[in-house]
Amino acid sequence: MNDLSQTVATHGARAVERCDLLGRAPYSDMENGLYRGWLTPAHRQALDVLTFWMRQAGMSVRMDAMGNLIGRYEGTRQDMAPLMIASHIDSVRNGGFYDGPLGVMLGVECVAALHDCGRRMAFPIEVVAFGDEEGSRFPAAMLTSRAMAGTLDHADLDMTDARGVTLAEAMRAFGLDPARWAEAKLAQPPLAYLEAHIEQGPVLEARRHALGTVTGIAAQLRYEVTVIGKAGHAGTCAMDLRRDALAGAAEMVLAVEEIARADKSDLVATVGKVAALPGAANVIPGEAVFTLDIRSGNEARRDAAAEAILIRIRALARVRGLGVGIEKIHNLPASPCAPALMDLMDAAITATGQRPFRLVSGAGHDAMVMEAICPTAMLFIRCKGGVSHHPDESVTVADVEAGFAAMMHFIEGLGSQHV
Amino acid sequence: MNDLSQTVATHGARAVERCDLLGRAPYSDMENGLYRGWLTPAHRQALDVLTFWMRQAGMSVRMDAMGNLIGRYEGTRQDMAPLMIASHIDSVRNGGFYDGPLGVMLGVECVAALHDCGRRMAFPIEVVAFGDEEGSRFPAAMLTSRAMAGTLDHADLDMTDARGVTLAEAMRAFGLDPARWAEAKLAQPPLAYLEAHIEQGPVLEARRHALGTVTGIAAQLRYEVTVIGKAGHAGTCAMDLRRDALAGAAEMVLAVEEIARADKSDLVATVGKVAALPGAANVIPGEAVFTLDIRSGNEARRDAAAEAILIRIRALARVRGLGVGIEKIHNLPASPCAPALMDLMDAAITATGQRPFRLVSGAGHDAMVMEAICPTAMLFIRCKGGVSHHPDESVTVADVEAGFAAMMHFIEGLGSQHV
Repeated sequence: MNDLSQTVATHGARAVERCDLLGRAPYSDMENGLYRGWLTPAHRQALDVLTFWMRQAGMSVRMDAMGNLIGRYEGTRQDMAPLMIASHIDSVRNGGFYDGPLGVMLGVECVAALHDCGRRMAFPIEVVAFGDEEGSRFPAAMLTSRAMAGTLDHADLDMTDARGVTLAEAMRAFGLDPARWAEAKLAQPPLAYLEAHIEQGPVLEARRHALGTVTGIAAQLRYEVTVIGKAGHAGTCAMDLRRDALAGAAEMVLAVEEIARADKSDLVATVGKVAALPGAANVIPGEAVFTLDIRSGNEARRDAAAEAILIRIRALARVRGLGVGIEKIHNLPASPCAPALMDLMDAAITATGQRPFRLVSGAGHDAMVMEAICPTAMLFIRCKGGVSHHPDESVTVADVEAGFAAMMHFIEGLGSQHV
Repeated sequence: MNDLSQTVATHGARAVERCDLLGRAPYSDMENGLYRGWLTPAHRQALDVLTFWMRQAGMSVRMDAMGNLIGRYEGTRQDMAPLMIASHIDSVRNGGFYDGPLGVMLGVECVAALHDCGRRMAFPIEVVAFGDEEGSRFPAAMLTSRAMAGTLDHADLDMTDARGVTLAEAMRAFGLDPARWAEAKLAQPPLAYLEAHIEQGPVLEARRHALGTVTGIAAQLRYEVTVIGKAGHAGTCAMDLRRDALAGAAEMVLAVEEIARADKSDLVATVGKVAALPGAANVIPGEAVFTLDIRSGNEARRDAAAEAILIRIRALARVRGLGVGIEKIHNLPASPCAPALMDLMDAAITATGQRPFRLVSGAGHDAMVMEAICPTAMLFIRCKGGVSHHPDESVTVADVEAGFAAMMHFIEGLGSQHV
């Protein structure tokens, strides 16, 4: 490989520039903000310009049956499965510019850098822009990576977007044949999967790291907790005669926080939604309902924390004479990154002059889908304030340059293992 | 006065029976439940039958310019202002049978008992059925007692009910002239005002009293508290990096409860409504909003508790690095009952063989309006479980008989002061 130090300052900046360009019309279907839903006009426009950029970087380009765009840069050997460098091109409504597209643009830049100096690895490289990681238009997420991995058993072609358009209609309008969605399944699993993504959390910033090696996608448990007390008139019911469901729920919210904080690991637990019923200023809450979300890269740790929290919730209810109902809503297993690829990423980060740092991803990514069929690696890039899904989402060019350099070292390292 | 012991067992039971009769069509405008809004067909039907019962009890009957029905039983002296025995005839939607009508029916029974034995006091007695204590049809409450007391500066004749009917139209349909609403003002303030009402709270039941002397309507303060933290992804933001607005609000809810409990007086404080924003299971709440309602019969005690609570809320916010905004929504002064009439009521309760017991009313009543123009007394009657504004609202005939007897002793006592 030629000297990377000269190309680095160009490629990262260009990746950021392109994300910024994609943040406005015609690549957004929203005025004064970014919304690029799967199979929308903005999605189509983004794939058109991305096709141009991929070809410019020496790739052949195809679209699969689910609208994933795939740029391919051939290797020197015909028999090898590709390294897939991927992320998603869709966005939430009024989202940020980097969540998703940055990983796609960095993939294009990696190939462009190889192409510029006439370099090929033994394995091909495929850069993929997934269509709907966010569930950006239809009420389902990661449909296109699931179709590609072959883990989507059934595509609900009748589900509708907010305007009542069915998935089948949206696919046809995009030039896809809904009946052929299953053809998106890869014929051959990739050699490896690499996804670069903004962290969407504040950990790298707080720990002063530009980059982090992701250990996996956290295992997630979600519950809905209902606390039953006795409603009453806020003026007429003496304090010692109350069974206030919200006061009980308040103790539970604090117990969740206390148990998660005491864990001192990657464990997080969150109460994000709460309601008191009947919900009037002059009525003592007879019922309180809240969500409970618990995550850790380690399923056993997550489960132990969940058990401790639920035991405490039941005990708190008992002391106050409240009823409690706990319903499990989700149970997503952890999706670990491949240990060998994590080591490779640590070495790549070190090669850029950065200190290696590992962290779990609390959020889901297409990588967790691809983990079903190949070893996966993820590189997190520091973002400002941990903000994402918001126009304030922000990265520095310097951090993205560092990320680009780490990806190039990663590709180099993988190349040295597959000659 | 003749021996009351023979009449007691009849009058209380009949008052309950009549409330039960008024709980169904044509006295309700709701199927399978009671709804009797001001100026509705059900209201009209109820006034028709009440007119019959008032006349049967020896009263002359008139309706005032706001639809209040007034039955008058003359006294032996022409120069005296009346004792007014009143409550409201309207109900909330799907309400209980006794909240309001029981006080009216007991007023009719008191006069009926006097009439049956040919007894008159020196002062006249007026039994009044107020039209809209509950705000049962239009978005305003106690309009008809306020008009009677002369404290209603302005009647918003253009306000509309849930179906878009204006107050002016509703009044005309009821046979009233909206332009003449101010004529409902009393020419002369009553000698005294007496209102019997179910407690609408659990205190009498818990303390094992059938009856209670009300010390006044509680002073009420209401706030909306907004806690500002930082929203973040529930999966990606480590516990020690969070500023969770809901966790802060949970501490505040518990502080409200703790301070009110520690007071050990009639003070009550309630958080009845809460929201976490943006309000998703996978987002750390960046904002939490809750209501705070504080009441006591003693304004100074209420204000001291409010100050202690607000100081604690601000301190809790500071410790967590949260912002806090506190907006005062309501400030209703206390409406004390007349001390001399409370003594008279205690004596009346004692004369029935019950132990006297005093309590504040946390809920509002027409008595608080009439307090502006005359001395007021209220008698609370125990209700089951403190439930009101619900079909499960329930009183025992024995308690109502006791209430009737206490009212007769109260009238007798007042009579001995005005001969």
